[in-house]
Amino acid sequence: MKVICSQKSLVNGIQTVQKAISSKIGLPIYNGILLEVTENQKVHLFSTDLEIGIDCYIPAQIIEHGSVVIPNKIFGDLIRKFPEGNIEIEINENNVVHIKEEDSSQYKILGFSAEEFSPFPDIQIKTKVRLSQKVFRDSIQEVLFASSRDENRSFLTGVLIKSVEKGIEIAATDSHRLALKTILLSGRDKSKIENQFEVILPNRALSELFKLLTSEENHTIEIGIEEKQVVFILDPEEEQNRIRLFSRIIEGQFPDYHQIIPNQFKTVIKLDTDEFRQRMERITLFVKEDLNTVKMESHSYDQQKSESRGELILHVSTPDIGDAYEQIPCLLTGEYVEIAFNSRYVMDVLRIINTEHIEVRLNGSLNPAMIIPNQSKENYCYVLMPVRVD
Amino acid sequence: MKVICSQKSLVNGIQTVQKAISSKIGLPIYNGILLEVTENQKVHLFSTDLEIGIDCYIPAQIIEHGSVVIPNKIFGDLIRKFPEGNIEIEINENNVVHIKEEDSSQYKILGFSAEEFSPFPDIQIKTKVRLSQKVFRDSIQEVLFASSRDENRSFLTGVLIKSVEKGIEIAATDSHRLALKTILLSGRDKSKIENQFEVILPNRALSELFKLLTSEENHTIEIGIEEKQVVFILDPEEEQNRIRLFSRIIEGQFPDYHQIIPNQFKTVIKLDTDEFRQRMERITLFVKEDLNTVKMESHSYDQQKSESRGELILHVSTPDIGDAYEQIPCLLTGEYVEIAFNSRYVMDVLRIINTEHIEVRLNGSLNPAMIIPNQSKENYCYVLMPVRVD
Repeated sequence: MKVICSQKSLVNGIQTVQKAISSKIGLPIYNGILLEVTENQKVHLFSTDLEIGIDCYIPAQIIEHGSVVIPNKIFGDLIRKFPEGNIEIEINENNVVHIKEEDSSQYKILGFSAEEFSPFPDIQIKTKVRLSQKVFRDSIQEVLFASSRDENRSFLTGVLIKSVEKGIEIAATDSHRLALKTILLSGRDKSKIENQFEVILPNRALSELFKLLTSEENHTIEIGIEEKQVVFILDPEEEQNRIRLFSRIIEGQFPDYHQIIPNQFKTVIKLDTDEFRQRMERITLFVKEDLNTVKMESHSYDQQKSESRGELILHVSTPDIGDAYEQIPCLLTGEYVEIAFNSRYVMDVLRIINTEHIEVRLNGSLNPAMIIPNQSKENYCYVLMPVRVD
Repeated sequence: MKVICSQKSLVNGIQTVQKAISSKIGLPIYNGILLEVTENQKVHLFSTDLEIGIDCYIPAQIIEHGSVVIPNKIFGDLIRKFPEGNIEIEINENNVVHIKEEDSSQYKILGFSAEEFSPFPDIQIKTKVRLSQKVFRDSIQEVLFASSRDENRSFLTGVLIKSVEKGIEIAATDSHRLALKTILLSGRDKSKIENQFEVILPNRALSELFKLLTSEENHTIEIGIEEKQVVFILDPEEEQNRIRLFSRIIEGQFPDYHQIIPNQFKTVIKLDTDEFRQRMERITLFVKEDLNTVKMESHSYDQQKSESRGELILHVSTPDIGDAYEQIPCLLTGEYVEIAFNSRYVMDVLRIINTEHIEVRLNGSLNPAMIIPNQSKENYCYVLMPVRVD
């Protein structure tokens, strides 16, 4: 194999595919990037940790076909430190990679045989759906944080993606809280979904995908569902710059989350989102990691009215640090309430909601609570369990 | 004690003095900042790890005198998260610190009695010298990296500051290399040095001082030498914004470094600094941490001339990574040479030299080498021992 590529496209290609590499996997070859030339004018780059995989193509002048796996770190660091310009990559029989930038820089890196590298199989796609990258990126951000980090319950470390009547639902839960987003699809896009689907993907697949997606308008992503894996194709209409992310599907039954979402509430509290976030950020400084509780209490100025002005009082007390107290003006409907939450669970959702106002909806101090943006068009809800305190 | 300060000046004050706090010291009180009111309109802030100390004053409305030590981390984080505006700090009898921002935010932090906190004693200043902050800041940067990190040879973990005929010398060495800077003082400034001095200061004192100094012109620093400590006063002419850094003096005899600085050379190599740095950065990617060697070899195009064009060849070979080769155009005087260095020692000095050209001066492959900026007005030299290779 012998190719000449621009430093810039090599850097981009390496940065893209190396996101699939994970330190979890012990085999040195999987810390590598597969480089292969099978077509003219293009080099194929691919990395995988056997759970997810990312590939892309970069333009190149092909002098000789072939393939090799190159250790990712030294390869990426070296290419990044070259000046802009052309770089020649040549592989000899023993998988030694010769890298040259003019005659004054010559490097040899020990590579691996591409035959020992496991690609993601190309299987028949059952169904596919196309949507905006920006919409999908925002939705991942709104849901992903609620998935579990507990590897013992692998299906809760995943994120559910499911076709529903209105479009697509994305859900994640760690059994203490649930984040649910519905992406509405227009009639035309919906009718293109040939078969209904419901898959659980590892949260790592979506967090790496998130980094690859753009928030610029007019970029699309195609989700292709296969038997045991899902493939995300970025900018599928562009043959040249297309990036694909493959992910294994997690087997297991996702909890029936619709039944735990309450639809009636005894107390509704409307707050300014920024003010709630800033005061929560301050007060959580006083929370100890093993005892994450923040207490909340509603104070109404005029309980006669159906919706009255009042205050939400936040309180944290940690014996060896001190004591913290914040009050936030709010609009209250319904019963007085005193409740406690894991402060991290509240902060997580406040970080991603960007509407001006927010609603906290409660059913007493022991039942699931709900936090939602104060705009129904968001199609987003976050349900969390309170913490019992005395 | 009861005071009202602006959030902004509190944040600045805390950020300044907390640099003296070190995790090395086990006593919780020394993770704190001393706040005290002894004069009107000002709060005094002070932190120390008993090796160095930093203090400053911030403007305040004083309602009641007194003092307390407040845990640094929670105090700094909390004040930083408050909006701009006034903050009220009140201490009760049990050293509980009450912090209020309007009535809607109220915090209590458990503090310590100021009586248990050890200040730096005010001793008689033997001599003092004033110079530009920018000049002193640049000089620290040029020398500090060469000091030793080996705590067993405490006098080599220090930096020497010494009055000499031309001005002030700053030197650091870890016994494998030496960095030496001479700060030239004008006749007027020099005549103000009443007594000659020679002190070794811990490198931490100078690295924290470096962060406090500005590279803007027209700011001065006063160095006051006492019996067992040195005090640096930033902007000594300004009564209000004055910051002081105290440092213990390290006892011990600094090596006689002048005798190891060679003054005749068999080979002199002139290089473009940026090109040398970039190629060294690339090639050191192939160096293993425990075997840091880079080989250098001079190639002349015309050995007849006293100064000829040629190349410096860099070479690194690490069995399980690969092989790296770079060549740099240069001007050569004197003998052919092949030599090896610890690559980190070369990179360290290339990072701080910012003249367009650089000179590598050698006396064969076993004797100390010298790297200097190619401008004599820099008054800087870096001496390093080569590594013996076969």
